[in-house]
Amino acid sequence: MKSITEKYGHERVTVVKGGVTRHRSIFNGLKVFAGSELANHLLQKPEVVIIHDAVRPFVEEDILAKVVMAAKEYGAAGAIRPLVSTVIASDADGCLDHSLERARYRASEMPQAFLFDVIYKAYQQCTDYDLDYGTECLHLALKYCETNAKLVEGPADLWKVTYKRDLYAAESIVKDNLSQQVCVITDVKEAVAQVGFLFHESLKRQIKVEAVSLPLSKNDSHLQNIFSGQYYNFVCVNDKKYALEETQKLVDMLEKRNTPLLDPVVLILVQLDISEKVSFSIGMEEITGIKKFAREVKKKNILVYGLLMQYKDHLLLQETVNSAAALIMALIKDRNPELIGQLLVANLLKYSTNTGKSLLLEANIPTTELLKQIMKY
Amino acid sequence: MKSITEKYGHERVTVVKGGVTRHRSIFNGLKVFAGSELANHLLQKPEVVIIHDAVRPFVEEDILAKVVMAAKEYGAAGAIRPLVSTVIASDADGCLDHSLERARYRASEMPQAFLFDVIYKAYQQCTDYDLDYGTECLHLALKYCETNAKLVEGPADLWKVTYKRDLYAAESIVKDNLSQQVCVITDVKEAVAQVGFLFHESLKRQIKVEAVSLPLSKNDSHLQNIFSGQYYNFVCVNDKKYALEETQKLVDMLEKRNTPLLDPVVLILVQLDISEKVSFSIGMEEITGIKKFAREVKKKNILVYGLLMQYKDHLLLQETVNSAAALIMALIKDRNPELIGQLLVANLLKYSTNTGKSLLLEANIPTTELLKQIMKY
Repeated sequence: MKSITEKYGHERVTVVKGGVTRHRSIFNGLKVFAGSELANHLLQKPEVVIIHDAVRPFVEEDILAKVVMAAKEYGAAGAIRPLVSTVIASDADGCLDHSLERARYRASEMPQAFLFDVIYKAYQQCTDYDLDYGTECLHLALKYCETNAKLVEGPADLWKVTYKRDLYAAESIVKDNLSQQVCVITDVKEAVAQVGFLFHESLKRQIKVEAVSLPLSKNDSHLQNIFSGQYYNFVCVNDKKYALEETQKLVDMLEKRNTPLLDPVVLILVQLDISEKVSFSIGMEEITGIKKFAREVKKKNILVYGLLMQYKDHLLLQETVNSAAALIMALIKDRNPELIGQLLVANLLKYSTNTGKSLLLEANIPTTELLKQIMKY
Repeated sequence: MKSITEKYGHERVTVVKGGVTRHRSIFNGLKVFAGSELANHLLQKPEVVIIHDAVRPFVEEDILAKVVMAAKEYGAAGAIRPLVSTVIASDADGCLDHSLERARYRASEMPQAFLFDVIYKAYQQCTDYDLDYGTECLHLALKYCETNAKLVEGPADLWKVTYKRDLYAAESIVKDNLSQQVCVITDVKEAVAQVGFLFHESLKRQIKVEAVSLPLSKNDSHLQNIFSGQYYNFVCVNDKKYALEETQKLVDMLEKRNTPLLDPVVLILVQLDISEKVSFSIGMEEITGIKKFAREVKKKNILVYGLLMQYKDHLLLQETVNSAAALIMALIKDRNPELIGQLLVANLLKYSTNTGKSLLLEANIPTTELLKQIMKY
């Protein structure tokens, strides 16, 4: 625990030894404040304390603020949720004794907040039975301090990660949160910047996109700002076969972030190929190059994927971009570490039989509109 | 609903119009049996009825059998689970009134089973208030028929898919269930069969594997049996560049299954390349060929992925297989429809600098042992 708080720079965290039950652990935490070693201002007695479970990782600031404000007013407050199932009591034979009317009851969740004096006094008066078999802090405040906690409706994400399925759900929520925005970076060449613009148009239907077009020089402060920011997904569009040098610069900038990368960053290298040749091929050297690079930066929690975008007819560009955007979204959402260094291909399958014109009609933006937008860009 | 039951051949299902509340829908279902149209033997009055929620999709036969047997003995029975959170009652001001002792209560889940006469009589005596605001069938059996339901501890998978996170969890559970076994198919050529054997060894550490080595002829009844069976994952190993003809045969066999493919089948085409050439490349024609094929069979709910396994040195085969097996597991577990038709590459990155011998020592099976096993195979 201490090495985690150190690694991620949580300087205001004090770790306290747990007890054999939930209540004993919480009591241990409270005792540290009561000890009042005035030398350490972090451990001075607070007005309000928040109690939370580590198994509820998706707690937002909003609900924390709400329970704290309610605790100031009422002495105690806790988050609640509607019951999902009916609650029943069984008799001694394991048969139904009675069922509770679901609308009258609530599930008690975390976080909960208390005036320090209320909850500390309650724990001091607890019996050993309370400490060993009880689970509900609000109950202690009521029983020993006659404090009726204010109940605050909390969001659904407060649920307790309990079963294996909850781990699945938690993983998907984390990935979902990481897939909300993407940054598209292109250099200033016209053909490349144009593709960057089309990616912006195609991706923004699904997620928030920031598109920047600028020379990938090491000293660009705008780019450094972007890489220091909240982005966890980057698409770099290039027309060079081996853009690994430029990519290395991006990786260097990611490393300069103030905080360590808590979650994996996805970096997709899009290589444009406007080949006039009839036969086109990918060399094994290139495939191996991306793989080696990807394996290296994986150690820094950066997942690199290659994406070759191939098109012969300029009029088919929008469709090819849409197809590439679908692959980009899949890579971002899955964040699959096994697929790093693979080179995916986005190309249209119909161009040998269809004319460019008939295909373009299937795309979303009419030709003239597309050209106008590109000119503006 | 009717088109679904027809499509998947559920011939013993009768669909009944729902009501505006849970209890009214269940009552409608029960009335069909009470109507006793003796012409239709499916709708004759049963001894026991099971009531279940569609939002609990992972119900196993075991718990169904348990509640039915208990209903025969007690008149009513229902699945229960321990409470995850403490249940509390609030007063008129939204403050804590009292909390329930968690150990004394249970969450009432589904399935539930009843003697038909018990539950039907209960519904017949229900008040409108019961039908509009009640949620618990066990409660009705107790209130109107003095039947104390037997409570049966159910598995964790009975939970109610309620929130978005539950959909994530459900999807992961389905994918997990589909990723439990794989069938590896190779033709009878020695070099290919050997790789098939090594795949078997590598994959079986993670999932159940059946490996078959046989000519991919259309009339092979053993192969047809395999494809009619429970497998949802196939790995086909070939040394030809365009093995699409053989693959088409496999797809044809999948189509001959008696039941429609309820879940997507994953079909991974592994192409071996033991190229002696220094420079190796993948042609765009090949990439486009797999893509077209994959897009076509996707309509049949079959997901096709390509995997090129490239190795120069025979002694490195085991390591290359392990690397390919990791990609295979990732494809099977994700079942990502966006990545169909892509050609992934499994090759070793070190062979230009290391000697074959030093690398082989990192592999799991010693050379002599490996050769012995291959001979047996």
